[in-house]
Amino acid sequence: MRAIVCNGAGDESVLAVGEAPAPSLGEGQIRIRVAASGVNRADLLQRQGFYPPPPGASELLGLECAGTVAEVGHGVTRFAEGDRVMALLAGGGYAEQVVVDAGAAMRVPERLSLAEAAAVPEVFLTVFLNVFQLAGLPDGGTLLVHGGGSGIGTASIQLARAAGVQVIVTAGSDEKCQRCLDLGADAAVNYRTGSFREAVREATDGEGAHVVLDSIGAAYLADNLASLATGGALVLIGLMGGAKGEINLGPVVARRLRILGSTLRARPDEEKAALVAGFEQRFGDDLAAGRIGPVVDRELPLEQVADAHRAMKASEHFGKIILVH
Amino acid sequence: MRAIVCNGAGDESVLAVGEAPAPSLGEGQIRIRVAASGVNRADLLQRQGFYPPPPGASELLGLECAGTVAEVGHGVTRFAEGDRVMALLAGGGYAEQVVVDAGAAMRVPERLSLAEAAAVPEVFLTVFLNVFQLAGLPDGGTLLVHGGGSGIGTASIQLARAAGVQVIVTAGSDEKCQRCLDLGADAAVNYRTGSFREAVREATDGEGAHVVLDSIGAAYLADNLASLATGGALVLIGLMGGAKGEINLGPVVARRLRILGSTLRARPDEEKAALVAGFEQRFGDDLAAGRIGPVVDRELPLEQVADAHRAMKASEHFGKIILVH
Repeated sequence: MRAIVCNGAGDESVLAVGEAPAPSLGEGQIRIRVAASGVNRADLLQRQGFYPPPPGASELLGLECAGTVAEVGHGVTRFAEGDRVMALLAGGGYAEQVVVDAGAAMRVPERLSLAEAAAVPEVFLTVFLNVFQLAGLPDGGTLLVHGGGSGIGTASIQLARAAGVQVIVTAGSDEKCQRCLDLGADAAVNYRTGSFREAVREATDGEGAHVVLDSIGAAYLADNLASLATGGALVLIGLMGGAKGEINLGPVVARRLRILGSTLRARPDEEKAALVAGFEQRFGDDLAAGRIGPVVDRELPLEQVADAHRAMKASEHFGKIILVH
Repeated sequence: MRAIVCNGAGDESVLAVGEAPAPSLGEGQIRIRVAASGVNRADLLQRQGFYPPPPGASELLGLECAGTVAEVGHGVTRFAEGDRVMALLAGGGYAEQVVVDAGAAMRVPERLSLAEAAAVPEVFLTVFLNVFQLAGLPDGGTLLVHGGGSGIGTASIQLARAAGVQVIVTAGSDEKCQRCLDLGADAAVNYRTGSFREAVREATDGEGAHVVLDSIGAAYLADNLASLATGGALVLIGLMGGAKGEINLGPVVARRLRILGSTLRARPDEEKAALVAGFEQRFGDDLAAGRIGPVVDRELPLEQVADAHRAMKASEHFGKIILVH
């Protein structure tokens, strides 16, 4: 089958359209004819050799896709051939076909195109898992998200609004901040010119945020912890600002702070299925009715994958970058 | 009323028998005539001025006690005058009387003396809260506890045994290690001569511990994180080895580790009541039947409080040090 292959590990130039063996279908799995796949920062890391696929996963890039069901494995009752689905993948989305556990797939709401649907799984499920399930953002609480203009950021803003919680974001330009506000953020801080710690203090009357969703890591660690309310959680889902840093455990103990490392990709199928079910139960109606939905920055043909990676690296985008097959 | 008072903040010499106003009784509270009170490391910190009582709490030392109910506030139905009780306190245990929310008190099992009962609340509830409720130690999991010979350590060993989980402890001498093994620990490491990281690896076939309960902090941070299984939790309840240190967030994210700061004292009454109820439900029968119980190192008369603090500072003890009034 047609797929994006990597000629070794390295910069965008290693990416090429090529051929890969079609995956085999097992019990409880579905085969998806991929119409579109989302680009994630993790793909850039994997391309460079820094984020190897978990055992048993496809070696190909691509952590999410949308398409139509081409084949249904033994024991699958939720889907039938021809169904429009979007799915969370442990890899393999940059390809003509992908096989995934049926529990990791969701039906595509009628109002969404398949390109739009490919922008849903990774970011909405990541935010739901980390902010709502793991960190337990309370009703009436406050969420701080770094990179409000990213896929994660735009999904966070919408889920927070749908849940009725306050959401504060950071972004790298005044224009992106404005777009975050337009999307529904309660406050947006240009991190090149302002202090998010100060912004959180103001927005919460000094109490702090109940959850911070962060993909920066060491560079923001001290300010993130200082921005948390008593009992609050810093959820680390990436380390774009480095892994190693200083920590002061004093306030962590005294204020009962939680630091939660999190990845979605390596979790077992049962956990992913439970996550998908939990998301559909809580936010499925919002998604179907268009109260929440993907923000697509651009759609590029699959063969322009290198351009897609370059755009993400440069943080040019607002929302998701989608590859259309 | 008679109480231990602190003449300023400082070493053991500031402690003296003196007089303090008897506390007033409010709705939902009980007055306890204190028969015995437990000594905790937090008392040593408070005496030195490093651990001020939370707002509204007694300024006197003492985080737990046992005694008889002397008076019952409006709305209290669980207890009557004369009942033998043990209670978790936000302060005030080193005194003739203390007033506490009824939800923070438990009935003393018949088989325990009041001196023994005073050794129960703080350590058993701390371990239950942090290891079972917050960290969610799974059935069949492994717990690592530092200071196996401390009150927290001896309570951890017993709760782990009662719950059927593996428990590994560290201690500062071969003799203490042996006593931990005799009490039921699966493995005990003399931290002066051995590596707990290595011991955990061996005891878990390389998987790591699901929960680490730690009161050391910075000095053990790296080894504690390296000792955790994927998804495991490091619960920090003290910082005897310093607050500031280096952290590598790489494994925290990649292995989904959790770092949970925790204190019990400052939690609201409702949370303490829920904790007490949860503990009684899960381990109340074990305590009543003597399958778990306090390990009392020594009982000292209240006026020897300075000796009690010195003994704890020197880590001479195995189990709890109790002041008898």
